[in-house]
Amino acid sequence: MMAPWREPLARALHRNRSLVYSRYIQLATVRGDGRPANRTVVFRGFRQGTDDLQLVSDGRSQKLVQLAGCAAAEACWYFPKTREQFRLAGQIAVIVSQTADPTLSLARWQMWQQLSEAARQQFTWPDPGQPQLEGADFCQPSPAEPPDWFCLLLLQIDQVDHLNLRADPQQRSSFQRRADSWTQVNLNP
Amino acid sequence: MMAPWREPLARALHRNRSLVYSRYIQLATVRGDGRPANRTVVFRGFRQGTDDLQLVSDGRSQKLVQLAGCAAAEACWYFPKTREQFRLAGQIAVIVSQTADPTLSLARWQMWQQLSEAARQQFTWPDPGQPQLEGADFCQPSPAEPPDWFCLLLLQIDQVDHLNLRADPQQRSSFQRRADSWTQVNLNP
Repeated sequence: MMAPWREPLARALHRNRSLVYSRYIQLATVRGDGRPANRTVVFRGFRQGTDDLQLVSDGRSQKLVQLAGCAAAEACWYFPKTREQFRLAGQIAVIVSQTADPTLSLARWQMWQQLSEAARQQFTWPDPGQPQLEGADFCQPSPAEPPDWFCLLLLQIDQVDHLNLRADPQQRSSFQRRADSWTQVNLNP
Repeated sequence: MMAPWREPLARALHRNRSLVYSRYIQLATVRGDGRPANRTVVFRGFRQGTDDLQLVSDGRSQKLVQLAGCAAAEACWYFPKTREQFRLAGQIAVIVSQTADPTLSLARWQMWQQLSEAARQQFTWPDPGQPQLEGADFCQPSPAEPPDWFCLLLLQIDQVDHLNLRADPQQRSSFQRRADSWTQVNLNP
């Protein structure tokens, strides 16, 4: 059974589908020194049969360094057209090329196949976040197989805050996971 | 003198001005238990004569609890029309009603006067984030003077990452503050 926040989220995705950037999410993690980091990522759907939100990332990026130190993350997802915000908190599992689990290994491989050529090509670029060198090569064709540093991220969500700014007063609901069940409470906005 | 990232940011704000939500930013902070938090806030301009980004917040919110424990924050600002992202990292100074500094006290008062009636009214609502009670009162007129829990937040920025997704390959610049001067480096995207 899907988590109870999946239905309002699916509705928001549908109602905002004309905006390509309604699939962009801001993902907060914690740096090694305890300061927060925050960047835009692309929503890659939910993992089939689960409520795990899928993202992709380059294993050479700072995001992966941060997740190795602290797997906790909070995604903030604002839908401009319906004026709704979802905050999705949980732990991120990083699926790397050496993953022993055959199901997860397949999920990673399938995600690579689903990516657009433009998205795949970014993984052929030089080390992300490093100083850019003269004549750096950004024109390699993307490989058919995922490169070693291609990672599938699974955000395993245990807390969701849904805010509807259109309502007057605004409506805010909180969803909490305890083991396999969810509770829902209406909060003051 | 303005920080060097102010000019590209001003340009992005101008070019995206037709979208009201181009003034919405995602602000990441760290919770007491070390997990990150992330929510949408409204850009309220820069404090005159400084590079400090202004936000407002309710002193009764979790954001303020988190900032009391860890002042570090990173704002992620995505501009949909020009496909640019600014990541602004720094420390947040919280200007409360008891602020002794007369200049900051005035800045807080002036910010209250500048807010729309709708924004002011939110500060009359019951405790944000608490379970909503039957018959809670959301209809009080907003006071002319800022309520005690009205806070002005000043994000004092020491690191900026500017990513331009429109360029091919994408362009990424990093700005670092050392005392009162800034250095700029081009990074691999």
